[in-house]
Amino acid sequence: MKEKYDDFLDRVRHIGDIGGALALLAWDQEVFLPPKGVPARARHKATLAAIHHDCTVDETLGALISDLQGCELGDFEAANVREMKRLRDRAVKIPKRLVTELTEAGSLAQQAWAQAREKDDWPLFAPHLEKLVALKREEAEAVGYAGEPYNALLDEFEPGARVEDLAQVFGALREALIPLLEKIAAADNPPDDALLRKHYGLAEQEALGRRVLRDMGFDFEAGRLDVSTHPFTEGMSPRDVRITARYGENELGMGLYSNLHEGGHALYEMGLPEQYDGTPVGQAVSLGIHESQSRLWENCVGRSREFFVAYGPVLREMFPEQLGSATSDDLYRAVNVVRPSLIRVEADEVTYNLHIILRLEIERALLRGEIEVADLPALWREKTSTYLGLTVPSDAQGVLQDIHWAFGVFGYFPTYTLGNLYAAQFFAVARQQIADLPGAVAGGEFASLLTWLRANIHRKGSLLRADELCREVSGESLSIDPFVAYLREKFAAIYGF
Amino acid sequence: MKEKYDDFLDRVRHIGDIGGALALLAWDQEVFLPPKGVPARARHKATLAAIHHDCTVDETLGALISDLQGCELGDFEAANVREMKRLRDRAVKIPKRLVTELTEAGSLAQQAWAQAREKDDWPLFAPHLEKLVALKREEAEAVGYAGEPYNALLDEFEPGARVEDLAQVFGALREALIPLLEKIAAADNPPDDALLRKHYGLAEQEALGRRVLRDMGFDFEAGRLDVSTHPFTEGMSPRDVRITARYGENELGMGLYSNLHEGGHALYEMGLPEQYDGTPVGQAVSLGIHESQSRLWENCVGRSREFFVAYGPVLREMFPEQLGSATSDDLYRAVNVVRPSLIRVEADEVTYNLHIILRLEIERALLRGEIEVADLPALWREKTSTYLGLTVPSDAQGVLQDIHWAFGVFGYFPTYTLGNLYAAQFFAVARQQIADLPGAVAGGEFASLLTWLRANIHRKGSLLRADELCREVSGESLSIDPFVAYLREKFAAIYGF
Repeated sequence: MKEKYDDFLDRVRHIGDIGGALALLAWDQEVFLPPKGVPARARHKATLAAIHHDCTVDETLGALISDLQGCELGDFEAANVREMKRLRDRAVKIPKRLVTELTEAGSLAQQAWAQAREKDDWPLFAPHLEKLVALKREEAEAVGYAGEPYNALLDEFEPGARVEDLAQVFGALREALIPLLEKIAAADNPPDDALLRKHYGLAEQEALGRRVLRDMGFDFEAGRLDVSTHPFTEGMSPRDVRITARYGENELGMGLYSNLHEGGHALYEMGLPEQYDGTPVGQAVSLGIHESQSRLWENCVGRSREFFVAYGPVLREMFPEQLGSATSDDLYRAVNVVRPSLIRVEADEVTYNLHIILRLEIERALLRGEIEVADLPALWREKTSTYLGLTVPSDAQGVLQDIHWAFGVFGYFPTYTLGNLYAAQFFAVARQQIADLPGAVAGGEFASLLTWLRANIHRKGSLLRADELCREVSGESLSIDPFVAYLREKFAAIYGF
Repeated sequence: MKEKYDDFLDRVRHIGDIGGALALLAWDQEVFLPPKGVPARARHKATLAAIHHDCTVDETLGALISDLQGCELGDFEAANVREMKRLRDRAVKIPKRLVTELTEAGSLAQQAWAQAREKDDWPLFAPHLEKLVALKREEAEAVGYAGEPYNALLDEFEPGARVEDLAQVFGALREALIPLLEKIAAADNPPDDALLRKHYGLAEQEALGRRVLRDMGFDFEAGRLDVSTHPFTEGMSPRDVRITARYGENELGMGLYSNLHEGGHALYEMGLPEQYDGTPVGQAVSLGIHESQSRLWENCVGRSREFFVAYGPVLREMFPEQLGSATSDDLYRAVNVVRPSLIRVEADEVTYNLHIILRLEIERALLRGEIEVADLPALWREKTSTYLGLTVPSDAQGVLQDIHWAFGVFGYFPTYTLGNLYAAQFFAVARQQIADLPGAVAGGEFASLLTWLRANIHRKGSLLRADELCREVSGESLSIDPFVAYLREKFAAIYGF
């Protein structure tokens, strides 16, 4: 049996190595690839993806998995077999041609999307998206699903989740958010974020980001911080985790919160069990859990009153002209303005989820075939008006704002709201279990929090499924209650209602 | 037959795509990889190298090559079959285990080398080098050779070359260089390079490099310029060619000439026939020819009197304090100081080749088993004394100075001197065939030269073997005469003898 597991492990690691190489090719494409290099990169990625697929569907690997399922293995080893079986069962159903086409179409669509967004030119991107939607519909049919096609795609990012359940959870969340937003809108004492909109030098903002990341526990010997249009995190291994940020010269929050957000993702990647690097159990359990780590640092920590007790002085010293007279409380209030806005990644903690609900509805209808790509710009305008009460002035600020579809990624958006919910649920437990966590944060000390996250979440890798992990950490399944309670308490105090 | 060639092409392109991915992994390792990410990167590279090897030795590919050899094909197509056969015949002889071990050992050795050089700590690197030498000896035996083991390794970089011939050419070259160096040493009117050793801001130096590269024809939409310890060029495709430079705050020449040198390599890569990208005929013909392109731009162009007619004013404007009073002739003389020095990459055009002769002798003896890794530091000192008349003050400035052995690259150094010889031979022809080339260079106009290089060398890819290409371009086989004549004429004028 040991021999069989070792054989299994060799094959799995081989696949993991190809995945690691693919991760670098993807990272580089967003950060450093010269524009004319895109077609060759698309080819290189498609070829590696095809090899990855070949190795995954390999029948000897399938036989080893079958044999090992009956064996007594350690917890992590058994989880490895379970997860590899899940990945392989999915891959077996997807023809290699589809894998290659999706990878190549995604690479080309990314470039088209970037140009289309820059030029506010939807028709430039639409044919690429049509191609991708057709391929994703084909993928959903190939993979199969209970309920509706969306589930086949959602499962890749949030294994075991069903869109019918999510829709219920998100519906309940919307019901809870509407009265909260009404109270916020009617409040007498709204915070003001004008001080964030002064001029802030980019070099100083990056230095601030590095400072905060270092304080959080980001290891710059095992990671990088670069700049890209759309901030993201890519982990080639727990010792090579790269994040990107986007800075705005007249918007202090954009850079700082992209640093905190991606930093949270990065700490998860850096904390994954290194002895299982390159194997499924060494990976993040789901994107919802991944997002819980970024949102926990970005919001529960980075938008807390205590955070500005620690960083108010740092900010005032770095930006004396802009913030010399701002108190920590001014800063805290400024980063917590709630205001419906057009751009998801800039949204506040309350309205953010409405952006996700909008996207989920669109994706779901698209996969069901109820709408087509040509309908998207108008539908986006309509739903933005309904959910956020805003008029979309341009497709660049509407349907073209996110990169995800250009990657051929559908079924990913809901994991953002799942992340918000998990983050609040986990953070509530952390506050109970860590001695004086608010005091630590107010002192700029994050070691106790990181240690707790490492032990309870990061080091587990994919040992448990997301829901099991949630129950193990918090004693309960996923619930909207901790998140709603967190928002109510926080914004009642800030807005004074 | 068309069908067979298409099948062949699909397989060859598949291999080329893996090679393209590997090139990015290698580039990133030198430029951006966080230090702790090295072991995972070593694994990822080793796995891709093993897959590359598997696909190369594949028997169906072998059968297709056999079938196609008898067929009537276009020139480039026939060259593709010939080159793929050469690559495959070599790969078939090398066990996959050796490929993996070499890749992985090379990745780890690189890191050890960087630390060893930084700390001047030879024992840190020695065990890695011992491992690599043992593997390379094994590779030479596996590949087989006529004459001596060195030929098996040399052939990878300079197909068809024999070390016995090179040793003769290099011997003749040394005979010609010695009297020239004596005249230079005895000259009454030596140039002075003090003005290059003032303080030059790094940002300005990089801006200068970008300016010169753009003037040369480097396409920044299809390439990048970054910084690394050891300047190099890596082409992922003709539309994604990346060079690195190294700048010295008190040394204007280091950055400028690494820009020109790598820029020359890059123009070759950018000019390779794009329709054959990812196939052997779309690659550089040999490293000697590759180096001819870098040396031609670095020396024949960049160290010419005309170059400073064009860039003297640019330099004076960029560095008014340092160079405000320097004439173009002062600059020309300063970059042409001949002085034996310890570091190859900083050597002048005359003594440079002595550095290569030293390395070739050491590598050859190492491969023959006449010396061992432990002998290298002392031998380096001895030969530096003999050939350059210098005392080596530290291993960092001696045996540890070059990265090549850390990559497991043996048999590469002689291509540098071949490059010098080819460069002079090609440039002599270019001066005859291009109307007023000196006038163009003096005007900062390089289009006619680049067009000539594109048509005569770059666009050929690997259509011809290096020697055939040399004869086609210059009407003669490789000779030391153009190079020696070029040096004599140039330095007689500068030194006044």
